[in-house]
Amino acid sequence: MTKEREIKMRLLESGATLFAEKGFKGVSIRAICEHAEASQSMIHHYFKNKQGLLDAIIDSYSQKVFLVPMKVMEPALISKDDFVARVRLIFISTFEACLSNRNVVVLVWRERMTPEALLAYLEVFKNFLLAAREKGFVRASIEPSMITGFIFDRIMNQVQLAPWLKENFGTDLENDEAYRSQWCESNTNIFLNGLINV
Amino acid sequence: MTKEREIKMRLLESGATLFAEKGFKGVSIRAICEHAEASQSMIHHYFKNKQGLLDAIIDSYSQKVFLVPMKVMEPALISKDDFVARVRLIFISTFEACLSNRNVVVLVWRERMTPEALLAYLEVFKNFLLAAREKGFVRASIEPSMITGFIFDRIMNQVQLAPWLKENFGTDLENDEAYRSQWCESNTNIFLNGLINV
Repeated sequence: MTKEREIKMRLLESGATLFAEKGFKGVSIRAICEHAEASQSMIHHYFKNKQGLLDAIIDSYSQKVFLVPMKVMEPALISKDDFVARVRLIFISTFEACLSNRNVVVLVWRERMTPEALLAYLEVFKNFLLAAREKGFVRASIEPSMITGFIFDRIMNQVQLAPWLKENFGTDLENDEAYRSQWCESNTNIFLNGLINV
Repeated sequence: MTKEREIKMRLLESGATLFAEKGFKGVSIRAICEHAEASQSMIHHYFKNKQGLLDAIIDSYSQKVFLVPMKVMEPALISKDDFVARVRLIFISTFEACLSNRNVVVLVWRERMTPEALLAYLEVFKNFLLAAREKGFVRASIEPSMITGFIFDRIMNQVQLAPWLKENFGTDLENDEAYRSQWCESNTNIFLNGLINV
């Protein structure tokens, strides 16, 4: 990584960390630059101002979090097995991306932001479920517009609460990969098949 | 309501509103008393100090939110229909109680609090699902400890995001009772039966 690119990355990371912790209003450009060990002119150089830095943080996060699930949902559905496999992939890829960008997840929630990529993802997911319903893979009584948040809510909360869950229940999402797989599998399972033993 | 009780209620409400908005640390006793139109001595009289007020807010919320679902889960399960009916009731009663106490939901999340009643609820819910699994009402592959947060996550988020959802999607959870019923029904449906058309 060039030194220039390194400074930019550090500013993005420090911004995400501090905004997540204290909120956008609660953080000064000066504090971000101190945290990133960069001069204040660098913020102006790369991002113009504090708002520009925030926008860049959200853009970078959006690309990392939503790119894979969007790609997964793109091709037409072939079969029920294909649909099931893709739902699993959407779940686990979104979860891993959110966990790796935990600060930004906390920040987006804290500031009640509406990244365009999130709106696009929810829309594509709704259409993906509608198509699956039309092909008979999804039950007719499912109303996709009511449940597009189901996976994302669950993931957002689990990622945000990771330290709290560790403290209160001893489960270590961030470091225990086996637990993470099991958690994703259990939650995909209930989303796909429900509780009831038919 | 006696005047005394009225002042106490106003302090609880103002505390919840301001703590939710600015966080526990960001609010002074003075600001709460001004908001509640009460003298500062009343805080000391009823709650001893700011921490005592916070504890009382959480206690009052815990009683309102968890009492009904806990009662619903108490009696032994009779049949699959009984189980399904109770899951519906848990969902809708928890949702309505959280919506009526939106400020406290926001506060509990914001401060990453762990009300004892929430831990007790999650434990009882896990045992309720284990009992249902043992009786064959719930599929054998369901791991209750991994999914106890499913309903609560979904409700917490929807309640917290109510204003955001209204702004971005035009859905009015707080005032549109028909939409609220439909939303609860759709989400209970997916939790019980899953997506897949079997």
